[in-house]
Order: sequence, then structure tokens, then C-alpha cells
Amino acid sequence: MTQLNPADESFLARLAADLPDTVLSEAEPRYLSEPRGLYHGQAGALARPRNTEEVATLVRHAAAARVPVVPYGGGTGLVGGQVAWDGPAPLVISLERMTATRGLDPLAGTLTVEAGAILADVQTAAEDAGKLFPLSLASEGSARIGGLLSTNAGGVNVLRYGNARDLVLGVEAVLPTGTVLHGLKGLRKDNLGYDLRHLLIGAEGTLGIITAACLRLVPRPADQATALMVVDNPAEALRLLDMARDLVGDGLSAFELIARAGLEFLEEVGPEIRQPFAKKPGWMCLIDLGLPKGQNAGDALMTLFEAALEAGLVQDGLISQSEAQRQDFWTIRESIPEANKRIGAISSHDISVPIGAIPAFLDEAPRRIAHLGPVRINGFGHLGDGNLHYNIFPPKGQDRAAWLDRREEVKQLIHDLVAEMGGSVSAEHGVGRMKVGDLERYGDPAGLMAMRAIKAALDPGGIMNPGAVLRAT
Amino acid sequence: MTQLNPADESFLARLAADLPDTVLSEAEPRYLSEPRGLYHGQAGALARPRNTEEVATLVRHAAAARVPVVPYGGGTGLVGGQVAWDGPAPLVISLERMTATRGLDPLAGTLTVEAGAILADVQTAAEDAGKLFPLSLASEGSARIGGLLSTNAGGVNVLRYGNARDLVLGVEAVLPTGTVLHGLKGLRKDNLGYDLRHLLIGAEGTLGIITAACLRLVPRPADQATALMVVDNPAEALRLLDMARDLVGDGLSAFELIARAGLEFLEEVGPEIRQPFAKKPGWMCLIDLGLPKGQNAGDALMTLFEAALEAGLVQDGLISQSEAQRQDFWTIRESIPEANKRIGAISSHDISVPIGAIPAFLDEAPRRIAHLGPVRINGFGHLGDGNLHYNIFPPKGQDRAAWLDRREEVKQLIHDLVAEMGGSVSAEHGVGRMKVGDLERYGDPAGLMAMRAIKAALDPGGIMNPGAVLRAT
Repeated sequence: MTQLNPADESFLARLAADLPDTVLSEAEPRYLSEPRGLYHGQAGALARPRNTEEVATLVRHAAAARVPVVPYGGGTGLVGGQVAWDGPAPLVISLERMTATRGLDPLAGTLTVEAGAILADVQTAAEDAGKLFPLSLASEGSARIGGLLSTNAGGVNVLRYGNARDLVLGVEAVLPTGTVLHGLKGLRKDNLGYDLRHLLIGAEGTLGIITAACLRLVPRPADQATALMVVDNPAEALRLLDMARDLVGDGLSAFELIARAGLEFLEEVGPEIRQPFAKKPGWMCLIDLGLPKGQNAGDALMTLFEAALEAGLVQDGLISQSEAQRQDFWTIRESIPEANKRIGAISSHDISVPIGAIPAFLDEAPRRIAHLGPVRINGFGHLGDGNLHYNIFPPKGQDRAAWLDRREEVKQLIHDLVAEMGGSVSAEHGVGRMKVGDLERYGDPAGLMAMRAIKAALDPGGIMNPGAVLRAT
Repeated sequence: MTQLNPADESFLARLAADLPDTVLSEAEPRYLSEPRGLYHGQAGALARPRNTEEVATLVRHAAAARVPVVPYGGGTGLVGGQVAWDGPAPLVISLERMTATRGLDPLAGTLTVEAGAILADVQTAAEDAGKLFPLSLASEGSARIGGLLSTNAGGVNVLRYGNARDLVLGVEAVLPTGTVLHGLKGLRKDNLGYDLRHLLIGAEGTLGIITAACLRLVPRPADQATALMVVDNPAEALRLLDMARDLVGDGLSAFELIARAGLEFLEEVGPEIRQPFAKKPGWMCLIDLGLPKGQNAGDALMTLFEAALEAGLVQDGLISQSEAQRQDFWTIRESIPEANKRIGAISSHDISVPIGAIPAFLDEAPRRIAHLGPVRINGFGHLGDGNLHYNIFPPKGQDRAAWLDRREEVKQLIHDLVAEMGGSVSAEHGVGRMKVGDLERYGDPAGLMAMRAIKAALDPGGIMNPGAVLRAT
């Protein structure tokens, strides 16, 4: 880190000589914070380039001057990947002006967009073309494609369509030397050399800045419906998942687990959201189906519900009777992160374990933190992917501020359990700056050595998002 | 290349001191040839390790002595990745003894196997578990998982399930230093650091040796059927593909284009294979459907056929009425590569273009080689992926030997056309040693620089499959 220099006036003067006036400005506070308010970035300079060439110019200057670069998307990342809170003041490069659609090929099922495009807009563009871009998550109204790919975002449709990386046929990126990687061919098959796309995706801006991507569109389901089904416990939820897979096969788009705590939190801080059941269930599953032409998703869910009822797997259930009701069900699910935020967690964990181990995890984790006393736990999320958001809150009526000194302890207890169970302590949020130590502690040693070697090879100056993923050296 | 040393007696003596007798032997001829008979490997030594620790020991010795290592799977690769025909005599490491199943988790849908497992056996293991491992290609009876992943194999089901890389949740590998990367967690979501899995997959053994993989199983379609439909030309085939996607959505497993030349070749060299239509059609499509419980694939294909007939897209068609007939249709498709081999091509090309450009490619390519005279062309393959095997043969009755001096010329004409159309000159076979020059000529310069930097970082001694993918330095 000592080798790096701040984005100081002389550096900015050199940038200004090579770039239009409108590209450079001071970094406003919103570029220096992150959603959980845990970290604050240092005030360096802000660049808002309008095209890939300007990004390349910025990076070339930064590489020559050894100034750290922090790529900035929608700012919605949850692990501090977008804010550099130590080291020399960086150049923040926001992709917000690069939102153009570069190409749409409905026959090939591809949509090529610049990295600043907001996910919701990309979803709309796909819809306008009669297709679906299936990446979907709570922050889709502000998250941008470049950040979503850099963090290999997950979300609610991974079960059916995969993670963000699985929805990308190619990327264009500015590498840490300032050269442009042109990789937007959009081919379904291309084995000409190493797959650099997948290396840049998930690298959280430490190996380059993704400037555009060729996205894979999928057929739009002709009929969609969503059910809420009440189960006794997570093990029954897993059995229901297995039954759903068997009965509806590929049509299963999402299978989410919701705990009573989530519904209680909604009541506490989001009373405008209607509770689905008169009596809050201990556990419920949100099941989303999307089926092709000629098939009825509601009927299929009813068949599933009846079979599950007969097998004693479910106690109660609701099947959406309209798109509005379907959205209401989803609103419950998608409002839980915001409710969590308002309640204020001591510690939040984005973990995955082998799917079959989910019940054991949900059983054991409370025991590991039982000594904390009556804390509240909201463990919920993407059951079908083995991915839970496991969040721990102060006892009701207490403020998180009094508990923050327990945060590291709680985190380590939960993360150790995840590691024992063969899971990951970063399922979908990435490493950012928050989990650098976790990668060192829980990551495979040979893998970590390889990651460091790759970082040093592609970014010899160490300028790209230093301190994210790998400790700055 | 001058820095490397041959696998000589003193090197082998050191290996023998650290490994059981049965691991080392002379390299029999079958380890030094490849299916097209174009290249012959140098006779070095052969190691057949029984476990990952033995692979690691071998690689550590090779790294210390700077002896080239050639990883060997089923030997079915078509680009010479498995035979080192120049440089010092290598140590060939065959994974053939490492065929164990390490784990099966039907609920999570994962099967963990060692790299020497043969694809057909893996398919059977999945079937025995009530699941499907959807990777499928002509050489599945001898190709091994390690090689299939190292080349990111494609095959007939990419349309629905993706390339080999998309079917892998994690890999274990011995890195070029001899350290073992443990990456078999089998999680659906794991964002803890760079994705080394996707870097090793498709690296053709140049960045390490894959020793085991956690494979993704998918639900087994409850009902399958296959149709052969006659179309006027490739453009109509594309319209039929679009209609099929619209009508059967996710159920479409394969969409293959077969040219009249393929049927003629079968008649010439494989008369035991029954021609499907009395009059050989100019073009036909093989369409494979697999549907979940309660749906009838034959009925769905009939609906498609009737709609296509009404739209004037197809002239004739057959829909399989039994599994045996379905296999007969597939036998036609899968026998074409063997027929090509028996006829003997001047030059074979594994190319992809954006799907919509397929008709233009099939139109223009013959023009580019018209000056050769009445050569025969068999262009066929994975239309749904934009991937064709475009093979050029001598005029009927002439032997390929007389034409081999035109091979480079033909290759370059075809590859230049592919590049003009924004395609790839290696869609699914990889680079191997055959296409190193193509990667240099057609690959993205920044990408090529990044690949070289990664290779140097992970394999500083340059021992891992030198001369494959990247020119040995």
C-alpha cells in the first residue's frame, strides 16, 4: 500500500489535460458510503467517464502514477467493495454515465449493455424484446450491471437460471494497465483460450473494470404464479423443495425460506405490508413457478400443494390468483432485508452450505451464540441454493449500538460453523473489504496463493480496488 | 522451451524413489497419438497415478526438474492438446486410474468424481441416482471427465444445459507448483474470492491438472422424444429453432443441423445406418425434447411439426415413436463424425458465429474456397449454439493425401471468414497445439497478454502442457 500515491492535485491536473471537463469532479458523500453505514471511503476524486476510451485513459493515468482506482457501480454492495477506507485517497470511477444498450439480438438471445445500466432497466429492455433477463434481487432498482457482475450477484432466481456469471456471454473491460479487453462476441461457444470473462466476473474490480457485457436472455415464461406454503421446520421445507423439483422440473424459478422472525420484523417496522397468514407461521416457503405456453402455473402449484398436504409436508398455503397478488407475496420476501436494516443487526451473514445441511445449520447456529442471551435471529433466504442470510439482532427494545462490540465474536462463531459444514462465508455478496480476513482464514491456501499470483500478474502496480478481495500489499 | 529438460533416466529414478513401482512405465504408442493421426507425441515417460497425492508428487518433481508434463485423459481431443510433438520428452500423466466416485448428493444434485472417470460411466451413475448428467458427445464412451473439463467440452445438449463448465460446481486440481487446490465444496453459491474453477476449466492442462470435480446433476426428463424435420435451407432451420423455443421453452435439449453431405457420407462408408428419408433431404434438423412428469414430448413435437408445416417451414418430418427409434435418429447424428473421419477431410473446422449469422456463413464459405474445384463440404452441428463443424473433403474418389498441402490455405480462408463474422475458430474443441497460431491471430490482443501473464504467474517454470494454448517460451 505504501507504493501507492493519492489522487492529488497534480494527478488530477494530468487527468484534466487528457479528458473533458465534465468527467472529473469532487467525490460527493454518496460515493464514499455504503448501505449498512459501516464504512466510509476516503475523499479522493471522482471520475464519471462516458465511454470505454475515457475509462481506459483514466486507468492508464492511474497506472502510470500508481494511484488507487475504486470502480463504482450502483453503490449497493454489502461488503465494502466500493469504498476504500484506508490507503491513499483513490480515484473513484463511477460507470453511471455508461448506460447505453450496445446491441440486442432476440434470435441469439443476447443483450449487450454498458456497465452503468441499472438492472431494472435491463430487465425492462429484455421484456420489451419478449425475453427475460432473470437476474433479480432486492436492490435491482439501483444496482448497475458492472457491479452486479463484478460481485457475481445472486438473487432470487439462481435456482433456475444460475448466478450472474451464468447469465453473461462476454465482457468488455479495462485491464489494470489501461488496455481494453474486447470480449463482447456473444457466442454460446468459444473455447479460444482461457476464460477471462469468469475471472473478471466476481473479481470485484480488482483485476479490471468491466465496461460492458453481453447478457444472455432466456425465454419469458408464459404463465407465472407464486405460492406461500407453511411448513413445520426447515427439514420439511427441503422435502417440499425436492417434491417441487420432481413435480414441476425446470419451471421452478425460486424457492425461498422465510422465518417467523422476518414476518415479526415486518410487523414491527413495516406495518403497511400485509401479513399473509392470520397466525404467523414458524416457517414458510415462497415458491415461484414460470411455465411455457399452454401450461398453467397456478394449477401446477395447486397440484404441488395437494401432494404436499397429503404427504403431511405443509400445514397451510396460498397460491397467487393474480399478478397483483403474486407481487404482494414477493413484496413480503423483498421487504425483509429493509426490515432487517431498520431493526439493525449486530451481525449479518451471507452464508451457503450444502443444501441438505441447511436444517442442521439452522439448528446448530443458535446454540453457538446461546451465551449472548435473548438475541433475535432472522435466518432466511435462498433455500434452493443452500444460501441463507443469517442475521442476528439485539433483544427487542435494545439498540444495536450496545452490541457492536460483540460483532466480531458473533461473526467468527457463525463463520466457523459454516466452515465446519463445508460451506462458504460469502455466498453471494462477495469479499469486498469486509471479508478479506475471512478469505484468508477460510479460503483454500493453494487457491489463495493462486489468487495473489493472478492479481500480481494482471495488476503489477496494485492499483485496482486495492484492499478488496485480497489484502493490499 | 530451452529451459525445460527431458524426462530422462535420472529424473525417472528420482520419481521412482518417491512413488510405487506401478505408477511409472514407458509411454505406449496410444498415449502418443491423437484421433485424427495428425500429430505424434514424443516418447517420454508415462505415469498413471492412483490418487491426488501421487499426482502432486509427480508435478512437484517435474517442477523441481523443469520437466514438461502432459496431462492425459481419454485421448479423444481433436486439437493435439494431449500430445507434445516437440520440446524435451515429457512426463505424460494419465488419470485413467483415478475413476472413483467421491460423493453423491441427490438432494443437492451433485456428483463428485475423480478426473479419470469416463463420461458414459458418469452418465450412468447419475441415471442410477434418478438424475441426469447432461454432458453428451460422440466420444462419451472413452472421454474422461478431466479432459472434458480441461477442454470445456460442448456436445449436443449445450443448448439446454450449457457447456461443460456450466455443469461444474467445483474442482480439485494439482497446480503447476505441485500444491493441491481443494475446491470440491459443491456449493451453488460461493463468492469467496476469484473463480479459479472457471480458469482451470478450459485451460487444457496448462495451468494445472484437474484431479476431481463436483458435477451438477439436473432433473431427469420424464419423457423424451426426437424429431427429424426437413427444411429447405439453414435460414428456415433457424426459423424453426425460434418456433421450437417459443412452443416448448426449456424442454428443448438439442437442435442439430444435418446437411445432405452427411447423409451421403453415411451411405458411402456406413451403409449399415438406415437413411431416415427415402429421398435424402438437402437439410434436416434433429430436434430433441425432454419434458417433466405429466407432459408428452412426442405430442409436443407433433404440435411443433404441425405449426411448422402450416407456416411452410418444413417439408417432411419423423417423430420418434419409441426410445429405440429415438436412438436410431441420434445414431444418424452421432455417426457423422466417424463417417467424416473415414472419408478423410482436407481440413476440419470447429467454428461458431452469432446464431443469426449461420445461414450467411454457410452461404459464403463455399464461395471462399470455390477455386479449389469440386471439393465436398459437410457443414453440420449444433445450430442452437451457433456452432458448426465445417469440414472440407476432396472430390469423390480422390484421396486426402493429395490435398493435404492445401490444408493451411483452406483453414485460413475459413477462419478469416469466421473472424469477419465475429465468430470463434474454436467453438468447443479448444486450442490445443493445433490452434495456437489461431489464438495469436484471431484472439483479442489484451486478452492474449492477460493469458500469458496468468500462465507465467501460475506456472513460472512453464512445465504444464507446454506448447498448448500458448506458445512455449
